[in-house]
Amino acid sequence: MAHIQLPEGLPGIRGAMAFRPETAKPLNELVEILLHGPNSLTPGERELIATYVSTQNDCYYCQTIHGAIAAASLGDDEALVQKVKFDFQNASISDKLEALLVIAGQVQKGGKNVTSDAVADARTAGATDMEIHDTVLIAAAFCMYNRYVDGLGTAQPRDEAMYRERGKWIARDGYVSVSKEYLPADVSR
Amino acid sequence: MAHIQLPEGLPGIRGAMAFRPETAKPLNELVEILLHGPNSLTPGERELIATYVSTQNDCYYCQTIHGAIAAASLGDDEALVQKVKFDFQNASISDKLEALLVIAGQVQKGGKNVTSDAVADARTAGATDMEIHDTVLIAAAFCMYNRYVDGLGTAQPRDEAMYRERGKWIARDGYVSVSKEYLPADVSR
Repeated sequence: MAHIQLPEGLPGIRGAMAFRPETAKPLNELVEILLHGPNSLTPGERELIATYVSTQNDCYYCQTIHGAIAAASLGDDEALVQKVKFDFQNASISDKLEALLVIAGQVQKGGKNVTSDAVADARTAGATDMEIHDTVLIAAAFCMYNRYVDGLGTAQPRDEAMYRERGKWIARDGYVSVSKEYLPADVSR
Repeated sequence: MAHIQLPEGLPGIRGAMAFRPETAKPLNELVEILLHGPNSLTPGERELIATYVSTQNDCYYCQTIHGAIAAASLGDDEALVQKVKFDFQNASISDKLEALLVIAGQVQKGGKNVTSDAVADARTAGATDMEIHDTVLIAAAFCMYNRYVDGLGTAQPRDEAMYRERGKWIARDGYVSVSKEYLPADVSR
């Protein structure tokens, strides 16, 4: 049971956002820009970073929904998502994404854990300053979203079909658009 | 030296925000609502929560600037801020704020660390569901801001006077207003 009285029928972050639409607005805008907006990293690559960090933080809701969005963005390759979650060093991904996942894992442990070597490796693999910046901020942001979702004790149903269906929807339409479903119009715009 | 090429002369999160104004906008709006907007918790109480979490995360820039904003919001009581940072259980604060700081410390360690007992204690001390929600989100958000600031290796000058002066300014005018100094007008509005 959640630690506070959240709206029923809205699992994970959706219940928390419906409870407090004022903070839902910037929270939605941030994830939209980081994961769905124009970027030299593909949406699939960015969703994999978010999924990996959420797995490291042991947040079931976030790792499952972002894993589903990642799969939908990557030609429904659910096996690749599972491999990245638990063994990205041996996954079929680019050297650049692998190097960025190393940085994301360091950020998850704490900002001071990011090493110059890891940043140099990412740069050698072709990462730009903007891609390194966005990787750090995606990893940092999911250390927030994961704590928000778990810290309130939100409902996190074990229903793979629900996450898969919703993942396809968000991959196509983005976060701000999909949030119209449960947020007031003046917030979800 | 920062891990990426950030604008010079802007310490801490300000350099990171100037580097990426698109993400600076929701990051600024979120902290404005959480710490400076209308709330049954005073700005000083909320800044103390942000300062405490930033101290637990060992982020010098964030704990110093938010400590300065907290002090400015609390009649320049810098001794109280220092006490809360390192020994809040024995600080001259309300039972409610003390109970909320316990929850904030649990969130800092990870969302699943929040206990029903800590939430019950906060409620007994008079905390509302909204105050518990905001405490969880403030703590979660500073686990992001702290990682963003340290993960990029931003400049964090040891210059107490700078933080004190800026703290007074933000306490008076808020985050979005003050960010006009270094962000484009269409972002800082």
